[in-house]
Amino acid sequence: MRIKHLPTPALLLDEVRLRRNITRLDEHLHALNVALRPHCKTCKSMDVARLCMASPQGPITVSSLAEAEYFAERGVVDICYAVGIAPAKLARAMLLRERGVRLSLLLDSAENARMLAAFAGERGHTFDLLLEIDCDGHRSGLRPDDPELLECAAILAGAGQNLLGVLTHAGSAYDLAKPGPEAFAALAGQERDAAVGAARRLRAAGHRCPTVSVGSTPTAFFGRDFTGVSEVRAGVYMFQDMVMAGLGVCRVEDIALSVLCTVIGRRKDSGHLVVDAGWMALSRDAGLPDRFARDGYGLVCDVDGRLLPGLRVAETNQEHGVIAAREGLCPSLPAGAQVRILPAHACATAAAFDVYHVCRGDEVTGLWSRCRGW
Amino acid sequence: MRIKHLPTPALLLDEVRLRRNITRLDEHLHALNVALRPHCKTCKSMDVARLCMASPQGPITVSSLAEAEYFAERGVVDICYAVGIAPAKLARAMLLRERGVRLSLLLDSAENARMLAAFAGERGHTFDLLLEIDCDGHRSGLRPDDPELLECAAILAGAGQNLLGVLTHAGSAYDLAKPGPEAFAALAGQERDAAVGAARRLRAAGHRCPTVSVGSTPTAFFGRDFTGVSEVRAGVYMFQDMVMAGLGVCRVEDIALSVLCTVIGRRKDSGHLVVDAGWMALSRDAGLPDRFARDGYGLVCDVDGRLLPGLRVAETNQEHGVIAAREGLCPSLPAGAQVRILPAHACATAAAFDVYHVCRGDEVTGLWSRCRGW
Repeated sequence: MRIKHLPTPALLLDEVRLRRNITRLDEHLHALNVALRPHCKTCKSMDVARLCMASPQGPITVSSLAEAEYFAERGVVDICYAVGIAPAKLARAMLLRERGVRLSLLLDSAENARMLAAFAGERGHTFDLLLEIDCDGHRSGLRPDDPELLECAAILAGAGQNLLGVLTHAGSAYDLAKPGPEAFAALAGQERDAAVGAARRLRAAGHRCPTVSVGSTPTAFFGRDFTGVSEVRAGVYMFQDMVMAGLGVCRVEDIALSVLCTVIGRRKDSGHLVVDAGWMALSRDAGLPDRFARDGYGLVCDVDGRLLPGLRVAETNQEHGVIAAREGLCPSLPAGAQVRILPAHACATAAAFDVYHVCRGDEVTGLWSRCRGW
Repeated sequence: MRIKHLPTPALLLDEVRLRRNITRLDEHLHALNVALRPHCKTCKSMDVARLCMASPQGPITVSSLAEAEYFAERGVVDICYAVGIAPAKLARAMLLRERGVRLSLLLDSAENARMLAAFAGERGHTFDLLLEIDCDGHRSGLRPDDPELLECAAILAGAGQNLLGVLTHAGSAYDLAKPGPEAFAALAGQERDAAVGAARRLRAAGHRCPTVSVGSTPTAFFGRDFTGVSEVRAGVYMFQDMVMAGLGVCRVEDIALSVLCTVIGRRKDSGHLVVDAGWMALSRDAGLPDRFARDGYGLVCDVDGRLLPGLRVAETNQEHGVIAAREGLCPSLPAGAQVRILPAHACATAAAFDVYHVCRGDEVTGLWSRCRGW
């Protein structure tokens, strides 16, 4: 089947670019002698994960228990659930562990450690746990020097739980004033130092702490020294997107994901093109609008994936996307013509679809599944 | 089952508020002697549509062929597909029509009319068609006085197609400088005049044009005179959201939709609460951020639906939402506590879920389906 025969909107995944992105990070981390634990929150697909994982059994990172269950059903047994665990989710996590999945859970407070210890005590279960470290004030976690870190570890040890180690994520990579190789390398050093430092404190207090997990796509690609780190996590690196291209993490021509859509009209006043992909297909995620507002909700390529310079999705309604030229007029594409939109944020755009139409050139070579929900 | 026993994030639909919102618009339009064709793009649910439709067979409006098929399978036979038709979608639309569904399609150019006429001629099929009118320069459609309007009608008539009439949507209701009852009433008049004027021109040229379809939630609620209009369309009115409350179309306490989530942490530096609903559950739609940036990605209620004043979802990551207070500190909710988020944009938030957990007070009374895709 050819791309031009697909109903639109459709989510295209360019297999050549996908494999190239995966190889790029694999080679970089291999050269630095550190393991990769791919974050499957972006792809949510076993077909994609198979290309990223070190073995068919993992390891991987996930962002929901639904993902953990989806990958476990498909044979993955080494899974890190990298979102702080809520007490009400422990029973479901335990079910997976009782089925033989090495599912590790994340904590960042003594309060949560106590609740987990109480649950584990009642059920007679031993969980594998990571303590979340805040390396950059971005979102959640304990600072490496916070006394609560040792308190958490002591609570878990006292309850006979298995503390694997620490995990951190340099989410501020997207907010750097001057992004670029040097800034990402510096942030990767900061991320490493926070995690390694926290692990050192825990070990000094008698905890084994074998896992030191760090990562974000920018710091994974541009980190130069992962000494003391046991694994790197990254997710969007597989697909890349306009945010990553804008930050200089990849080139526009590395973006493996696009939304195939059809021109359904043209505004007479402005010459803007109207396509059948609105926010339902593209998501309302404009990436980093403070920085890349000129890219709107995505850049525009022809059906063969060649960039149409100067065009962007300027507005989205639910099922309408409005394509505008940055300067001058849009090219006069006829109604029925297909174009491809390169997404601002691949994680959000992919989430709008249940399947990937995998392609090589203009040929559709596969239909790959995605999981969904929580 | 009680709400507090639901896994989070979950999409709650308050049945009392839902029914009240539906009744409010029904009574308003009934008093003005005009029919309602509810737009099911927001709910995408037969269970919700049953409460909105004049009969179990419709009429309804939809925004995708997948929706049309979903509702047709459940007995709805009068469906308006209110997004400009792409030529490649005609075969699928014809299949529905051959199954007895009165599916009407939308056009706004002579180019598209010619393509439709060619397809219909080849297949020997007669489509029901509406011409899209641009009443406010918002998105798509022909201006009521555009000569192309009569050209489209002539092409369709010449090809033996069934021109039902005209359709317009005052999408600019969300961009009004001074929104309020007077402004919405004025815009409803403009919307009506554009559609009625276009129909008059078509009738003068010999086309019957029985359908004159207008609508948006603000103009539907605040229109005062629908003379000449045959039906009003509205979608988000069923659920309402922060955009509608911000515009004064409803009160915050009318919002029927909320996302139940769980507190998973608290930032020590800022006191912000972290919950397990990020953009994957809430969507990245911040409504009208230029106008209501203070509401962020949603307002926060306790588990019983009572507003927690001054709180909002200030940031979202994929599976993390960060709740901040507009002034001072967040209340100190323990990890594991549940809160409800009132969405910025109900259409986008609902799209993140596959089911509604319908509730009355703190009790879950139903599980209602949603459709998805295109």
